[in-house]
Amino acid sequence: MDPSSPTPLLDQVDNPADLKGIPRQQLPALCAELRKVILDVVSVTGGHLGSGMGVVELTTALHYVFDFKDDRLVWDVGHQCYPHKLLTERKARFHTLRQKGGLSGFSNKWESPYDAYLMGHAGTAASAALGIAMGDRMMGRSRHSVAVVGDAAMGCGVAFEALNHAGSLEKDRLLVILNDNRWSIAKTVGALSRHLNKLRSGTLYNRAKEAVHHLIQSIPVVGKPLDARLGDTVEMLKSMVVPGHIFEELGFRYFGPIDGHDVNGLVEALEAVKKLDGVVLMHVLTEKGKGVPGSEDRYDRAHAAKPQPVAKKKPEKVPVEPCVLQPVVPVTKPGRSWTEWFGEGMHILAKQDPRVIAITAAMPDGTGLMEFRDAFPERFVDAGIAEQHAVALASGMATSGMRPVCAIYSTFLQRGYDQVFQEVILQKLPVLFALDRGGLVGEDGATHNGLYDLAYLRCMPGIVLMSPKDGSELHEMMQFGLGLSGPAAIRYARGNAPNASELLGWHGRQQPVELGRMEILREGSDGAVLAYGHMVQTALEAAAMLDKRGVHIEVVNARFCKPLDEAGVLALCDRHDRVVTLEDHSRVGGFGSAVLECLAAHGPVRAQVQVMGVPDEILEHMSRAQVLDACGLTAAHVAERFLADRTAPVTPRGR
Amino acid sequence: MDPSSPTPLLDQVDNPADLKGIPRQQLPALCAELRKVILDVVSVTGGHLGSGMGVVELTTALHYVFDFKDDRLVWDVGHQCYPHKLLTERKARFHTLRQKGGLSGFSNKWESPYDAYLMGHAGTAASAALGIAMGDRMMGRSRHSVAVVGDAAMGCGVAFEALNHAGSLEKDRLLVILNDNRWSIAKTVGALSRHLNKLRSGTLYNRAKEAVHHLIQSIPVVGKPLDARLGDTVEMLKSMVVPGHIFEELGFRYFGPIDGHDVNGLVEALEAVKKLDGVVLMHVLTEKGKGVPGSEDRYDRAHAAKPQPVAKKKPEKVPVEPCVLQPVVPVTKPGRSWTEWFGEGMHILAKQDPRVIAITAAMPDGTGLMEFRDAFPERFVDAGIAEQHAVALASGMATSGMRPVCAIYSTFLQRGYDQVFQEVILQKLPVLFALDRGGLVGEDGATHNGLYDLAYLRCMPGIVLMSPKDGSELHEMMQFGLGLSGPAAIRYARGNAPNASELLGWHGRQQPVELGRMEILREGSDGAVLAYGHMVQTALEAAAMLDKRGVHIEVVNARFCKPLDEAGVLALCDRHDRVVTLEDHSRVGGFGSAVLECLAAHGPVRAQVQVMGVPDEILEHMSRAQVLDACGLTAAHVAERFLADRTAPVTPRGR
Repeated sequence: MDPSSPTPLLDQVDNPADLKGIPRQQLPALCAELRKVILDVVSVTGGHLGSGMGVVELTTALHYVFDFKDDRLVWDVGHQCYPHKLLTERKARFHTLRQKGGLSGFSNKWESPYDAYLMGHAGTAASAALGIAMGDRMMGRSRHSVAVVGDAAMGCGVAFEALNHAGSLEKDRLLVILNDNRWSIAKTVGALSRHLNKLRSGTLYNRAKEAVHHLIQSIPVVGKPLDARLGDTVEMLKSMVVPGHIFEELGFRYFGPIDGHDVNGLVEALEAVKKLDGVVLMHVLTEKGKGVPGSEDRYDRAHAAKPQPVAKKKPEKVPVEPCVLQPVVPVTKPGRSWTEWFGEGMHILAKQDPRVIAITAAMPDGTGLMEFRDAFPERFVDAGIAEQHAVALASGMATSGMRPVCAIYSTFLQRGYDQVFQEVILQKLPVLFALDRGGLVGEDGATHNGLYDLAYLRCMPGIVLMSPKDGSELHEMMQFGLGLSGPAAIRYARGNAPNASELLGWHGRQQPVELGRMEILREGSDGAVLAYGHMVQTALEAAAMLDKRGVHIEVVNARFCKPLDEAGVLALCDRHDRVVTLEDHSRVGGFGSAVLECLAAHGPVRAQVQVMGVPDEILEHMSRAQVLDACGLTAAHVAERFLADRTAPVTPRGR
Repeated sequence: MDPSSPTPLLDQVDNPADLKGIPRQQLPALCAELRKVILDVVSVTGGHLGSGMGVVELTTALHYVFDFKDDRLVWDVGHQCYPHKLLTERKARFHTLRQKGGLSGFSNKWESPYDAYLMGHAGTAASAALGIAMGDRMMGRSRHSVAVVGDAAMGCGVAFEALNHAGSLEKDRLLVILNDNRWSIAKTVGALSRHLNKLRSGTLYNRAKEAVHHLIQSIPVVGKPLDARLGDTVEMLKSMVVPGHIFEELGFRYFGPIDGHDVNGLVEALEAVKKLDGVVLMHVLTEKGKGVPGSEDRYDRAHAAKPQPVAKKKPEKVPVEPCVLQPVVPVTKPGRSWTEWFGEGMHILAKQDPRVIAITAAMPDGTGLMEFRDAFPERFVDAGIAEQHAVALASGMATSGMRPVCAIYSTFLQRGYDQVFQEVILQKLPVLFALDRGGLVGEDGATHNGLYDLAYLRCMPGIVLMSPKDGSELHEMMQFGLGLSGPAAIRYARGNAPNASELLGWHGRQQPVELGRMEILREGSDGAVLAYGHMVQTALEAAAMLDKRGVHIEVVNARFCKPLDEAGVLALCDRHDRVVTLEDHSRVGGFGSAVLECLAAHGPVRAQVQVMGVPDEILEHMSRAQVLDACGLTAAHVAERFLADRTAPVTPRGR
């Protein structure tokens, strides 16, 4: 032990076996060291700081008591697993967090045998851990299955489904740890939250067991004989009192609340529940962002840390396909994010129309609705981490004549997919979906990429799907979407919206948004790019690169994926030999496929059409610029398609 | 009133206003008449008999107390709405139930102003009704919003999300009626069910309010003065007792249990709760299939009635596009259903491999797993109406090394879509999805059609998608799928599987299933049909028709949608001028689009490719044969594609 090291204890711990060698009385000091390392590293790399800081003691205690190389630990969401990573053979690589080739920002089974799952969407840990427990029993294997679930995630429907199922089982052993940080991403919504508040207020569980006898015994004179006399009545009252916990009602043995920052108390509690059979819920109280300076009353600060500008590393240089072209505009430009544009648009539209209401699923900040919430508290609904309910609720509101805007990340709308179908599509109701994070998101990686919304929404009859090229077009599309009599979705990306004035410099006046009509931005006779959403910017950059090489391409802003501008597409494909469709979405089933379907139905046409989009694979985390490049979706890649044509004829096969 | 009529009271009632004119004491007689009419009609038309029979009194009482032309009534699932239809201006058309052009088998907003929603998937009524209530408040409208939810549907995650949200609100007025028939489709799963059992056991709510005082007052001599002395203690005990109900914990005022077959008791209870503000849950006990002869202990009989063969109407003659061809084989043949083939296959595979486990979401019967459940009770899991949990649970089991088969209807897997993505796809786990009812289902209509699974699954990286041409190929694919190391889905249709021996008569020996390889069934030089799943049969029928006209087409069994047999597709499209892809799935984003994407990536090819599939619209209910015909998916329609080529050249536009 090197006393001069800032982390003398952690220096001795590379894995849980090392941890078990640390004496109990030193665990608090080890936790302090873990907290310091996380704070130091995350302030450089960025990431979900608060969640991890809150579970330092819980994580340490879990690894002290269980053996998660064999036992299974499922972290719900997984963004709280930084201390877990530090204790499970990833300390040396911790500084690579969320960087290309480095550690991911979530629990990740592809990264470590200690991680049971790659997780990023909330609420499913109890289901998965129960499945492991049941599977283990069937396979004749004896090990522990533990799920750590946040209090907000407990409000997810799927978490309820899992508890409801687990509580009815008799043979399986499952430990669900309710990590109750009383904050969650936004303030936890719902009655469950109020219930938890009640549980938090004391050691209700223990009190209930003794309450009746104690109360009656305390009555002077008649108390004690009365107590003896009441006998069965007291038993009856007890049975009526204990089920006051929802979790007990659901069949779990409830322990708690337990101080989540008393590491030795946690170790003792875990050792006790480890011996139990059946399904157990252990309620642990933690402080999100514990130890983060200034985070005590700012959940948004505690939730995720942005890299500190001064300490920020330069993006790693990525080897790209050889290309002589240089981008004229960097991929990420200073300016306003799509999210901010959306928030501002909601503000404007809500002022114009009292029927406009914003619905979010626990993402008021992430979807840019914090100011809207303050300005129009009556017309803002946070449904909690409950996308299914959020969508069905929007449907009900539309039934009442309101104009709900459901702001949900592209990847999270997958959770409400069936409600989009039944409650919105089949009812033909005017619900407007605002799909933020549509496309590649970068550091958050595979769980958060929004690569499938076009595929899963395009097959739904009657929905209008659109995507703007820039912020002002987003505003126009929001207004347009709210004017429709049926469902619509607008998709936009993570990061900054391209600058409208720059684009206007290329193509002049913007054409008004019209249902199912594309917008030709610039002309050219050497081919065309038909781009969807923010990829219009990339197409324009490619065109500018190509201009310098004497190649002049047409650039079209598709605007609508559904209904597609069929006449426009057919005409475009008859004007050119080569048309490239361009989208920040899976190449499977997206905008390009819509174009191909149109051509199959109404063709043949002159052009050969190529679909450029995200390849059909699970992508690693890295910066957004890096992943766009890795997917071949930069302006240089687009330009190459037209240069390749000139140097070599297109070979029909085997590319 | 005509006393000679078998339904003298119902004769006077066409709408709820008429109903309100019936004296209270005659309501039980009216209910008996409703029950008789439903039983008589459904035994002819087929349909969900039990659910409707169970809510005759509840429906009558609801319309007696509320005015649902203005107030809103949301039926969860909606298959219990037959008495509702009889009381809301649809009596004269009731005999057209589930027939083309007739009444639908579910609640349907497109059919009547009394129906708030078109519903068929369970669990969302409370969300939708809450949305209506909140929207009404915001719109300044004062009316009642009522949801009727079954006990099994209460276990849906989305129902919990809705209750959790509603219970935390202060301004909104919502009545949720828990229609507790203690049966549900399968036996209700989970701890909630046990909780309901406890609630059912008495009028716990009323008892609790008085329990403590009563108990103490009943103690001789010291009772009454003691009671006065205890004062606050009793209050405290009361507050500990009342929250014994999950629903009270969630913030609802709970009333019940109430006898659901005492129509006047229901009227009184509804009149009482109608006056209350806030969110109220009324717990009504009903008997599913009340009045159905012999249904008392057979939930499957009570759930849905098949039309009585003797009384069955002939399928309505449907005008089709003029076509000289006659089918050589009828669309629906006698034989075994796909579902039965699947159930048998599970039996065989479970015997061979102890790791095979079947998971269903409240559909053991519908998915053909009843016999499997009896034979392998340890390897059968019914997760309840909780597709999200069912999929995540399967993921956990696969993590443990089991080989879970998740049998879920195509349309219901939409509910578990995000778990397919995160818990299965991203983990690359060997979960096999058995998608029954893939394609058009017929009488159950739009909510139950499984038209989107290829679109929503095809975009997921690494999943294998396949569909068999007949029952024995289903068995082979099941075995093949269980041998894969990653996720896979097999899709098959409602109704009978084509007869393998008939097919073999056309093409000889079957080729073994090989990953991503199609199967050429017959050769021909006048074009080709590349068919997916059961549509292979349709393609073969079309080829037989065309043979008689001297037109000889190649027929290919695609087998795999993902990975697609790219080399096979390219070769096929180079052998022919005209290739038609054929699928019982939306034309948008399905198998045909996979083929088009392949051609765009690797083409050009000689053939013009046409995609035949289900048009992109919401389809009405009718028989399966009728809807296949309406969608242009019969053998005659396929054959026409090749005849049209001969009589007139293909015009490139405007078709």
